[in-house]
Amino acid sequence: MKPKKVITLGEVMMRLSTQGHERFLQTNNYRVYYGGAEANVAIALSQWDVQTAHITAFPDNDLGLAACRYLKQTGVDTSFVFKTPGRMGLYFLEKGVMQRGSKVVYDRFDSSFSHFDGAHIDWDLLFKDADWFHWTGITPALSQKAADLCLKALQEANARGVRVSADINYRRNLWQYGKGPKDVMPELISLSNVVVAGLEDFKNSLDIKANEYVAACVQVQQQFPNVEILTTTERESIRATHNRLKAILWDGRNLLHSKSYDMTPIVDRVGSGDAFMAGFIYGMLHMAKEDALSFAVASAVLKHGIPGDSNLVSLEEIQQLVDGEDFGKLLR
Amino acid sequence: MKPKKVITLGEVMMRLSTQGHERFLQTNNYRVYYGGAEANVAIALSQWDVQTAHITAFPDNDLGLAACRYLKQTGVDTSFVFKTPGRMGLYFLEKGVMQRGSKVVYDRFDSSFSHFDGAHIDWDLLFKDADWFHWTGITPALSQKAADLCLKALQEANARGVRVSADINYRRNLWQYGKGPKDVMPELISLSNVVVAGLEDFKNSLDIKANEYVAACVQVQQQFPNVEILTTTERESIRATHNRLKAILWDGRNLLHSKSYDMTPIVDRVGSGDAFMAGFIYGMLHMAKEDALSFAVASAVLKHGIPGDSNLVSLEEIQQLVDGEDFGKLLR
Amino acid sequence: MKPKKVITLGEVMMRLSTQGHERFLQTNNYRVYYGGAEANVAIALSQWDVQTAHITAFPDNDLGLAACRYLKQTGVDTSFVFKTPGRMGLYFLEKGVMQRGSKVVYDRFDSSFSHFDGAHIDWDLLFKDADWFHWTGITPALSQKAADLCLKALQEANARGVRVSADINYRRNLWQYGKGPKDVMPELISLSNVVVAGLEDFKNSLDIKANEYVAACVQVQQQFPNVEILTTTERESIRATHNRLKAILWDGRNLLHSKSYDMTPIVDRVGSGDAFMAGFIYGMLHMAKEDALSFAVASAVLKHGIPGDSNLVSLEEIQQLVDGEDFGKLLR
Amino acid sequence: MKPKKVITLGEVMMRLSTQGHERFLQTNNYRVYYGGAEANVAIALSQWDVQTAHITAFPDNDLGLAACRYLKQTGVDTSFVFKTPGRMGLYFLEKGVMQRGSKVVYDRFDSSFSHFDGAHIDWDLLFKDADWFHWTGITPALSQKAADLCLKALQEANARGVRVSADINYRRNLWQYGKGPKDVMPELISLSNVVVAGLEDFKNSLDIKANEYVAACVQVQQQFPNVEILTTTERESIRATHNRLKAILWDGRNLLHSKSYDMTPIVDRVGSGDAFMAGFIYGMLHMAKEDALSFAVASAVLKHGIPGDSNLVSLEEIQQLVDGEDFGKLLR
Amino acid sequence: MKPKKVITLGEVMMRLSTQGHERFLQTNNYRVYYGGAEANVAIALSQWDVQTAHITAFPDNDLGLAACRYLKQTGVDTSFVFKTPGRMGLYFLEKGVMQRGSKVVYDRFDSSFSHFDGAHIDWDLLFKDADWFHWTGITPALSQKAADLCLKALQEANARGVRVSADINYRRNLWQYGKGPKDVMPELISLSNVVVAGLEDFKNSLDIKANEYVAACVQVQQQFPNVEILTTTERESIRATHNRLKAILWDGRNLLHSKSYDMTPIVDRVGSGDAFMAGFIYGMLHMAKEDALSFAVASAVLKHGIPGDSNLVSLEEIQQLVDGEDFGKLLR
Amino acid sequence: MKPKKVITLGEVMMRLSTQGHERFLQTNNYRVYYGGAEANVAIALSQWDVQTAHITAFPDNDLGLAACRYLKQTGVDTSFVFKTPGRMGLYFLEKGVMQRGSKVVYDRFDSSFSHFDGAHIDWDLLFKDADWFHWTGITPALSQKAADLCLKALQEANARGVRVSADINYRRNLWQYGKGPKDVMPELISLSNVVVAGLEDFKNSLDIKANEYVAACVQVQQQFPNVEILTTTERESIRATHNRLKAILWDGRNLLHSKSYDMTPIVDRVGSGDAFMAGFIYGMLHMAKEDALSFAVASAVLKHGIPGDSNLVSLEEIQQLVDGEDFGKLLR
Repeated sequence: MKPKKVITLGEVMMRLSTQGHERFLQTNNYRVYYGGAEANVAIALSQWDVQTAHITAFPDNDLGLAACRYLKQTGVDTSFVFKTPGRMGLYFLEKGVMQRGSKVVYDRFDSSFSHFDGAHIDWDLLFKDADWFHWTGITPALSQKAADLCLKALQEANARGVRVSADINYRRNLWQYGKGPKDVMPELISLSNVVVAGLEDFKNSLDIKANEYVAACVQVQQQFPNVEILTTTERESIRATHNRLKAILWDGRNLLHSKSYDMTPIVDRVGSGDAFMAGFIYGMLHMAKEDALSFAVASAVLKHGIPGDSNLVSLEEIQQLVDGEDFGKLLR
Repeated sequence: MKPKKVITLGEVMMRLSTQGHERFLQTNNYRVYYGGAEANVAIALSQWDVQTAHITAFPDNDLGLAACRYLKQTGVDTSFVFKTPGRMGLYFLEKGVMQRGSKVVYDRFDSSFSHFDGAHIDWDLLFKDADWFHWTGITPALSQKAADLCLKALQEANARGVRVSADINYRRNLWQYGKGPKDVMPELISLSNVVVAGLEDFKNSLDIKANEYVAACVQVQQQFPNVEILTTTERESIRATHNRLKAILWDGRNLLHSKSYDMTPIVDRVGSGDAFMAGFIYGMLHMAKEDALSFAVASAVLKHGIPGDSNLVSLEEIQQLVDGEDFGKLLR
Repeated sequence: MKPKKVITLGEVMMRLSTQGHERFLQTNNYRVYYGGAEANVAIALSQWDVQTAHITAFPDNDLGLAACRYLKQTGVDTSFVFKTPGRMGLYFLEKGVMQRGSKVVYDRFDSSFSHFDGAHIDWDLLFKDADWFHWTGITPALSQKAADLCLKALQEANARGVRVSADINYRRNLWQYGKGPKDVMPELISLSNVVVAGLEDFKNSLDIKANEYVAACVQVQQQFPNVEILTTTERESIRATHNRLKAILWDGRNLLHSKSYDMTPIVDRVGSGDAFMAGFIYGMLHMAKEDALSFAVASAVLKHGIPGDSNLVSLEEIQQLVDGEDFGKLLR
Repeated sequence: MKPKKVITLGEVMMRLSTQGHERFLQTNNYRVYYGGAEANVAIALSQWDVQTAHITAFPDNDLGLAACRYLKQTGVDTSFVFKTPGRMGLYFLEKGVMQRGSKVVYDRFDSSFSHFDGAHIDWDLLFKDADWFHWTGITPALSQKAADLCLKALQEANARGVRVSADINYRRNLWQYGKGPKDVMPELISLSNVVVAGLEDFKNSLDIKANEYVAACVQVQQQFPNVEILTTTERESIRATHNRLKAILWDGRNLLHSKSYDMTPIVDRVGSGDAFMAGFIYGMLHMAKEDALSFAVASAVLKHGIPGDSNLVSLEEIQQLVDGEDFGKLLR
Repeated sequence: MKPKKVITLGEVMMRLSTQGHERFLQTNNYRVYYGGAEANVAIALSQWDVQTAHITAFPDNDLGLAACRYLKQTGVDTSFVFKTPGRMGLYFLEKGVMQRGSKVVYDRFDSSFSHFDGAHIDWDLLFKDADWFHWTGITPALSQKAADLCLKALQEANARGVRVSADINYRRNLWQYGKGPKDVMPELISLSNVVVAGLEDFKNSLDIKANEYVAACVQVQQQFPNVEILTTTERESIRATHNRLKAILWDGRNLLHSKSYDMTPIVDRVGSGDAFMAGFIYGMLHMAKEDALSFAVASAVLKHGIPGDSNLVSLEEIQQLVDGEDFGKLLR
Repeated sequence: MKPKKVITLGEVMMRLSTQGHERFLQTNNYRVYYGGAEANVAIALSQWDVQTAHITAFPDNDLGLAACRYLKQTGVDTSFVFKTPGRMGLYFLEKGVMQRGSKVVYDRFDSSFSHFDGAHIDWDLLFKDADWFHWTGITPALSQKAADLCLKALQEANARGVRVSADINYRRNLWQYGKGPKDVMPELISLSNVVVAGLEDFKNSLDIKANEYVAACVQVQQQFPNVEILTTTERESIRATHNRLKAILWDGRNLLHSKSYDMTPIVDRVGSGDAFMAGFIYGMLHMAKEDALSFAVASAVLKHGIPGDSNLVSLEEIQQLVDGEDFGKLLR
């Protein structure tokens, strides 16, 4: 059987992490990782033998080259990675522990990706045999060019009948180029079929206010009839290194609930939403939606134990957790 | 408004820590930190925009210079740091985990500080505009010279109406120069206004025996009428990396209780008593005593998540924990 | 009083561990440890002032020399370590965390030890003043030569009245030289006095099937009258980094139960069975069997907090945990 | 213009290197690199925008997967990388310094590659548009299967008119499967067009003895008329970290000499012969042979400054060294 | 005697360095240092017991705070360090070795310093008792605001009779805000007394063309009568890790030459020009100009052996090198 | 043939080294090594299959235990290692590079060894089958007890006809217990047969002044008729990381000269004198004195390339350097 093919679009940043539990104020050493909400999805899927291609742009210097090498390593097709003037997007991360939360210093303005207009993308080639396209609300929040490119990609995907997922992922610190989410997101969501979002995302991005998930979903579907499935994770934070995670899904008729997982000690929660998304896309392409939800949560849970943005876990490891077998045991 | 000014006196040691969970027997690598019960207080206060000066002495070599650079880095005024013959005080630390406790090898005898008599201190300059002086029971335990200097500093502080706090901090392995705590501590406590101590400290240092905190406090205040406030933390040790912490305070009339915090996984508990002390001094200088107690405990709790002796947390982080808001969440 | 003397036989491997929580797929750095089920026992005992000698073979290159230096460092007598053609046995370890289990890649085939026939061992010299001989089911699983050597050692031990312990330690991935455990283990067990094994071990190695420990033990003792004591640990796995551990012992008449310990966060569980074994041998040589069981479990629990295969804990630390005093406290 | 395409075949090993100048006897830490004589060529070419594909086999475990990820990262096409039973080939490296030479412990027997027969290779697909095929004398030295596969690949390349280069690379410690180089190499060389070899290689592999390079080359060409070009580097070793390097080339009529370079302090000389080979292939595909020789030596020189087996240098950096401009300067 | 006081102005960047000899393409780890051409001068002087204050601006985040802590550590007065909107200026450094040069990726645009207008500087307080002000051509190259601030500072210094040194330090990649060096530098140089520059600097910044140093200097002094002394280092680059360094000085009448030093293996040449500058300022404040030149070159030479931008060497170490005594010996 | 047996006596310190080329002022990390002038000799000999025992004392804590484990690892017999009150002797080392010398901060006063009187040594057992005893001038410089113990050991060695070597090793910073070298050394030298010393050593320790080596040796032999052989290394220091080394030997009749070696880049010169001594003792026990001298210098040269105090090189590596074969080549 032909493997599935998924296309993603978005910025990839270099992450500079303090080691151990050191704070920014005391470190003299940063560990490098690479990640971006959408590339994280492609990377995870690529490990599970899904064909993936990621659209992005890097500066024409060794930092961009190193980031691109990372993408290649994961098996993601980098034919649609371009070199654009601008800087490498960066973020600095200090991981929290106990009652102290993690801290992020973003340094992504003026990035190559924010200047990228995708003019040289061959859309036919890109979407050939593609089954799915995934985007997040971070891309249109970066710059007018990025928002335009996102819209263009959605139109091209819709034109070819490629299924579309959106992770609204509202970030109040972005959206600094003159537009707000409510100016831009509705049109983009109208071209999407699967939406990951919580109540805050709905309110801030779509101006849909509700106190309860199903109520919000009903409104979204009334307004955006293309949206077939809405899903979100629910996180309870006991301490920075101890959370509980589950997920819910609305398919237009029923609200499905996943198992809840107790996660401690958390190693690295950055990218866990993307791990959920990747798991959910994989699930939707290969199994029933109830199973997709279980698979997605298990994927997200395992991500909390992996350093870096990428969810380096195998299909077997996720399935084992879903099945509740032998997890956490030493295998030899 | 003029920032508050706090003066501290005490030895600063170089700490050599094994990395990760390695034991002394297996390490080939030590991470360097600097700390001392009193300097830890000054360092924490300095971060919270309190003016601080620390009185100490280092050997005239690169180890002493490096320690002094560390103090400077934190913003503590090092005008009263002197070079004295003797060695750099050291201690080696192996952090515990699970059921295994942390282990310390002290190597501080013959240190420069133990030979330091403070003859060149300009007390007027030092105490100019000062609001508070802090000392601990470690200083008089080190040497006759250190005990004499501590007494001298207390007399000078009292003469100028500077408020004094004492952390009794009884350590049975010190006091090797011919005197015991009961020979020395009563006079020093009689010159102090705020005392941090538990029942063991009262018994060993002041010969005040009681089975219950309020009873002990009443005796202390009878014997030392200058003492207005007594406080102490109470720690429950479930495992080396899992403790619970709260604090109590006696103001002569009422016994106040703080919230209790569950702390796991503990990163580094060394200096947490000093973090409490720093928080309490800050609190007493800026808020009501109930709030000071809450602030002090939250400061101590956060210290358990920071590697090294210094409590590198901001006012905002402590206040957020006091307020119970969003702690342990990823902020972005 | 003459110190006790214990002899062990088995392969020592170089362990290459990823650091922190990194996965094999993302590491560029391996930390080296050395271990083997039997040598781990000798190393632990050696720290407790038991005289130990370990029989093994290494390749005649710097990797073998480094491994031998490690053994020497621990005080184990290496007079019976030989150089044999073949490779250094290796294993790669990625530690689990949360719901993700640890992962091992063994790379031990064709090792020097598997080619070692022990022809040059002076058995009289080896067993002079020896009190105990310990072997595990890993040795006969490696090669015909190793199985033969194990049998020979047991016969020599029995001939001299040296007490023998066996840890059945069934591993399905070994036994690739043409024989299965049921062909080899019964004869070896018939020469042993103390056996560590669980129900799976009995079934796979001795073809003794039972659903309940005492029932199994009774069968073992009927079939192997030399076996006086049977014991095993029971592990409950909540997560990879959170387990509970206790142990049971059958002495032919009674089933003894140890205390149960809650272990979190686990640092390194490899070698914890060997830590139990070492503790039990120490206990049997120095105390009543009830106390030996308590001592053995406490030894195993502490091992979970030590990086590497060796249980680098002192008699005092174990005794303190047995006594339930001050464990996990900072001692200064 | 269509980019050139080069195919390589050979084992890729995981290299475990001690850090700094540590010896095997004192390290507790290994840095991981990946390399193999032929893959090193593909990796270097891939950086210079040559299309490359490498034929190899890895074990079906995380070590094999990690090695394959490394290849992907460099841009080499891994469509012809297979999973085969057997182990990951390893080698341990301790770098020399001053008068002490580097030391290697090979641990590559029984590797997946040595069991690989290439039965599933689609030769038409592999050689489509290919310009060059490269092999070394290490492959036929590993196993009968590897020797057979090498011959098969050479026949397929010759059948399609693909130019072939051979690096004889004689290693006395290999050839342990029952055949010697003189049994196997002549047939393979008869199918090659460009040969890298020195006098020792000619003697040991082709039984061609001469005291002087041109004389040897003339004999080679008489015996193997397909061989058009012979070349070799000449290294003078002043100390382990100080060498001089130049190269010579015989084209059937003239002996060409490159510039000589003084190299100190050498960082890592492993893979420098492969860097020469890569540079020479690149040169032969894009420039006159005199320039190819200069390019190849400059490539080899720069490799001595790069940690790991891969020659991570750009075309521009090599060209700059060839041109003698600004090398060794800080560019900003 | 009152210690001398020197004021500096300029951007301080966080430097992220690859470790060992690793290239950007292969690192996953960056070591943090801090530096800037002018702060490097202040830091060096501060170690030599010169009073220093540095004017700069950092972003109001933990990266800015960490950089400021570094400055404090060195003893530089940070009263004139401000928080300004914008990012932390960064640069990435890969150190060269042998024939491969070091490589820098600057990432400093939009930095806080480039947005800093110095409006809140109390010039009287700043220049109280000041003996010297130092600036470089990097500051006016960053932004209009920075150029304006530099001019303002020079005017304030001249108004108070504070001696001024300038390091022209021409960088072609800066000057991107609409003005070129020739638009801005002449006015700034007209307010300076000591100028460090080479022939390229004169040509690009002052439009003064000459093939020979004295000829250039004569023209400079004709055009800028305030300039009393011109000096420059001359570097011969044998390899990236082997350079020779000397300096020349023109005082309007004579051309002085320093000793030449052979430097190998160079550890880190970044900041060596600033080490020269610091040495020269120190020399001019404490000794005859011939001695100042010797001192400055020795300072620069020693910098090549220190990792990071700061010249962490003592007066005694420099003097010892000047005197040619015992350098490079183990002192014990 | 019975292996030779050599006894050594002296303090073993923990060395804390900065990493790379970092200075004390900038490090936050120390690498641990162990060494002492006499133990370094034993460790080297032990590797060359000489039986060795070292007499020393450590504190009864984990630092002492770790140091003792290091000795054991090298194969030195630790039966004569005792636990004595006092601290672990330490020294801090910052390695020099280029024109900057290495820097040492000693922290060894009040060490356990300085309080050690050797009362429990069984001299008969110690010297059973011993061929050689080695001491250095550091031991009598530490304390009266150490000087007395050294004398006692020499008397016991002489009484049993054990050959004695002395390395005078004059250190002006020691000798702080009330006696000077001239009070103590003559008697000790009078009991020695082989003496390593230079002109400064003779002058400061024996009050023998001469400008020329042979003249000095003649005087020594007149005064101390037991002394048969005198030898010393001669080091020329071009830079901290570039030295030249040779040695001379006076046997009462002839002055022998070794080859001279050019050493660059030096990795770690601490312990190179001890490596010479070990090589010379080995040589005197196994070969003619001319060969012993060559062997000793080659041993010393190779030490400069090994991190740490111990000379971890094999007999074969030294012999290869003596023979001038293949040194510095990659062996595979």
